Amino acid sequence: MIVLCDFNLVTIGDGTSISKYIVECHKIFQKHGLKTNIHAFGTNIEGTWDDISSAIAECHNLIHDLGVKRILSTIKLSTRNDREQNIQEKIDAVKNHL
Amino acid sequence: MIVLCDFNLVTIGDGTSISKYIVECHKIFQKHGLKTNIHAFGTNIEGTWDDISSAIAECHNLIHDLGVKRILSTIKLSTRNDREQNIQEKIDAVKNHL
Amino acid sequence: MIVLCDFNLVTIGDGTSISKYIVECHKIFQKHGLKTNIHAFGTNIEGTWDDISSAIAECHNLIHDLGVKRILSTIKLSTRNDREQNIQEKIDAVKNHL
Amino acid sequence: MIVLCDFNLVTIGDGTSISKYIVECHKIFQKHGLKTNIHAFGTNIEGTWDDISSAIAECHNLIHDLGVKRILSTIKLSTRNDREQNIQEKIDAVKNHL
Repeated sequence: MIVLCDFNLVTIGDGTSISKYIVECHKIFQKHGLKTNIHAFGTNIEGTWDDISSAIAECHNLIHDLGVKRILSTIKLSTRNDREQNIQEKIDAVKNHL
Repeated sequence: MIVLCDFNLVTIGDGTSISKYIVECHKIFQKHGLKTNIHAFGTNIEGTWDDISSAIAECHNLIHDLGVKRILSTIKLSTRNDREQNIQEKIDAVKNHL
Repeated sequence: MIVLCDFNLVTIGDGTSISKYIVECHKIFQKHGLKTNIHAFGTNIEGTWDDISSAIAECHNLIHDLGVKRILSTIKLSTRNDREQNIQEKIDAVKNHL
Repeated sequence: MIVLCDFNLVTIGDGTSISKYIVECHKIFQKHGLKTNIHAFGTNIEGTWDDISSAIAECHNLIHDLGVKRILSTIKLSTRNDREQNIQEKIDAVKNHL
């Protein structure tokens, strides 16, 4: 199942700075060959649901191993079968009309 | 990885009534033996991430097979290693103090 | 604008226990006369968007006053004009078919 | 209350194409003087919560006026008082380490 996702992760019970953990997540996404786009509240991800859901599990496991006790992720999962979808055309579909 | 999730699904480009599709999702959750709690904006789910992420893929595939062209799910994924978590104690932790 | 909302709040850079803050949020919702339903990942809220968005601002301000440096809320906002909507009928629309 | 938000809107019971409505939302954000960043699953917004929550109500009202019966928005709301936050530094905090 080819999907577009949006992934947001926060650590709870740790410090206020989360970006160092997000950097680790991106190394995991890169290892899986996933295409990504970073924004201020998370990361758009293109790939298969198997790859992305596995990568997200790796992110949680790694961040727990780094000492964080509690993690909350929010994942948006988009599928459509009327046509292909990708990160850039979704952005362009709005930007080209502004 | 044992997790607590919250799952919300909407169909896009179909009618305004979504509950019939949510009923189908719940049959899939039941088949996987997942513990659930229904609320007005989705379903709390207890289980392993492998089971839940597979069940969610089945939900998308089934609903596309039923003729829906576009689906958006929002998944919240909570993990913690300081203690066990379950749906009912999270609810009670608030309700018992009101 | 009458709306149905779902509200989830987490504190970042504080301890792993958040329920004490959610209890304070519920006191604010009660003060505003908002109808609520607690679940494991947040609270369904019925009311006007003016009341709910004001109450959410009060929640953030109070929790910062209690010493929390960083707060992230996720709000789902549903409106429809084809018919009335309320928390209980949305739950029943699924539960009655299981 | 100065906030960072993420805003995602979907129309339900209309066609599969939503971008035309998102373009209308952006005209409303521009009218309010809000700083924005478009991504594949929504828009990061910088401003006051009063301005942003009002703009979101205008978006729902306008899109209903355009004939859409049901709308679901997801809003992430971030506040912090330990330091200032803005869209670009949140993105750079991750990108500069990749």
